[in-house]
Amino acid sequence: MTGYFTEEGSVAAVNARMTEHANPRVKDIMSLLVKHLHAFVKEARITQDEWDAAIVFLTKSGQICSSERQEFILLSDTLGVSMLVDAINNRREHGATENTVLGPFYVAGAPHRQMGDTISLDGKGESCLFEGKVIDLQGNLIAGASIDVWSDNADGYYDVQQPGQQPKWNNRGRFVTGSEGAYQFVGIKPVSYPIPDDGPVGQMLKHLGRHPYRPAHMHYIVTAPGYQKVVTHTFVGDDPYLASDAVFGVKETLVAVYEQLTDGPAKWRSPFDFVLTRERS
Amino acid sequence: MTGYFTEEGSVAAVNARMTEHANPRVKDIMSLLVKHLHAFVKEARITQDEWDAAIVFLTKSGQICSSERQEFILLSDTLGVSMLVDAINNRREHGATENTVLGPFYVAGAPHRQMGDTISLDGKGESCLFEGKVIDLQGNLIAGASIDVWSDNADGYYDVQQPGQQPKWNNRGRFVTGSEGAYQFVGIKPVSYPIPDDGPVGQMLKHLGRHPYRPAHMHYIVTAPGYQKVVTHTFVGDDPYLASDAVFGVKETLVAVYEQLTDGPAKWRSPFDFVLTRERS
Repeated sequence: MTGYFTEEGSVAAVNARMTEHANPRVKDIMSLLVKHLHAFVKEARITQDEWDAAIVFLTKSGQICSSERQEFILLSDTLGVSMLVDAINNRREHGATENTVLGPFYVAGAPHRQMGDTISLDGKGESCLFEGKVIDLQGNLIAGASIDVWSDNADGYYDVQQPGQQPKWNNRGRFVTGSEGAYQFVGIKPVSYPIPDDGPVGQMLKHLGRHPYRPAHMHYIVTAPGYQKVVTHTFVGDDPYLASDAVFGVKETLVAVYEQLTDGPAKWRSPFDFVLTRERS
Repeated sequence: MTGYFTEEGSVAAVNARMTEHANPRVKDIMSLLVKHLHAFVKEARITQDEWDAAIVFLTKSGQICSSERQEFILLSDTLGVSMLVDAINNRREHGATENTVLGPFYVAGAPHRQMGDTISLDGKGESCLFEGKVIDLQGNLIAGASIDVWSDNADGYYDVQQPGQQPKWNNRGRFVTGSEGAYQFVGIKPVSYPIPDDGPVGQMLKHLGRHPYRPAHMHYIVTAPGYQKVVTHTFVGDDPYLASDAVFGVKETLVAVYEQLTDGPAKWRSPFDFVLTRERS
């Protein structure tokens, strides 16, 4: 036994090289990565040309990244890895509002607004009244809950994707529930849009016969002292991409009602209650 | 059954999205990648912070790449993936010369030289006579075999790593065997060196308690009409890093003798015969 690399003993050869000077968690993670990565290479019988193509793909993905573009997050999202990491780290009791992906367009520090205010600053799109309650699993109202919301505009772009073309903080705002645990604000009925698909990930989707669209959704981060943070969306129930979200963000419990109003402060109304669970101790 | 993403059904949810418009091989590869990648994420229970760190690692790896630097090849090499792909695609009969990694410093088009010539152009290092035969599994001599060789210099750098500081084609050359199937040339006894470790891969090695060194080796590509191409090294048998090559390139059959000469055209002599196998039809 020389410890040299062999096809059969490839995993052991690599993992035996990590020493007692390793960071224990990094060592655990990388040992498992080597095990699963080698199993993949063996099962797929990757050729030298395919390996070359993978090196080029990863290099291009890194080089297209900028302050406005994160191709590796798109890659993780489109392979279901982002949703899987979210799921593993946010298992909750039945009945609690489920998480979904944060997405790359969240910006911390949106303006605080009063209940009933509008977050649409460009006047475009179909107005929609969003309202509901923040409650716990027993239905108790949660006062002082913070609701941070954001959506795309009527053209399918977030404000940060169009600096100078949209008002800053367009379709974003923060609200805090009062003693009734209720929230209410006016935004627009969000629209579906493609994830950026002019780079390596877009090429990959084409090779897989997949489209790049996300179904229309409203983003929420809901927090309250003593409760687990909820990072989620509500989806527009009749969206054509609901069953084929490019990033796998849809969960059945997050599909919301959007009903047309004939009278009232907006053209649409989307009611949704957020159900929080106690912080894990 | 909605087809929406769940933790348990994560692989099926992603792979079901590939359509009949997919490239069949890309679909096969990516389906297997999703299966093994999700298994890794689940077994390692990757946290959100660890996922963030992975995104940063991959992005930095892409952004450090240049015409002289390929961090993803280093990553593949140091995780044993390059050697595994090579092994899968170059299984040979017992007794045939084994492959090992090509490495990032090969340059096609080295000067043709006559048998006995020296390839060391800077006069540095300990001279070494490399000689042997190119034969088949039955011991028959192979005439007209091409031997493309390259090594680092006495300081552990390849010529392409020090443009302007080393003569072009220093320690590189191509030779063709005559009717005796023999080769002979003078180079230097190669020295061990670290792979570039000032980037993300170097950081990873530190976190794993691993050093970045490769044991001293001479690179060869041996080809002959009708025979499988051999991409390999011969290693200096007493190198301190022989059992811990950072890229796992060492195979027992590739460890060569380096004997000191008291008399002759060089300070050292390293004999090695290359045994080729017939091209697969």
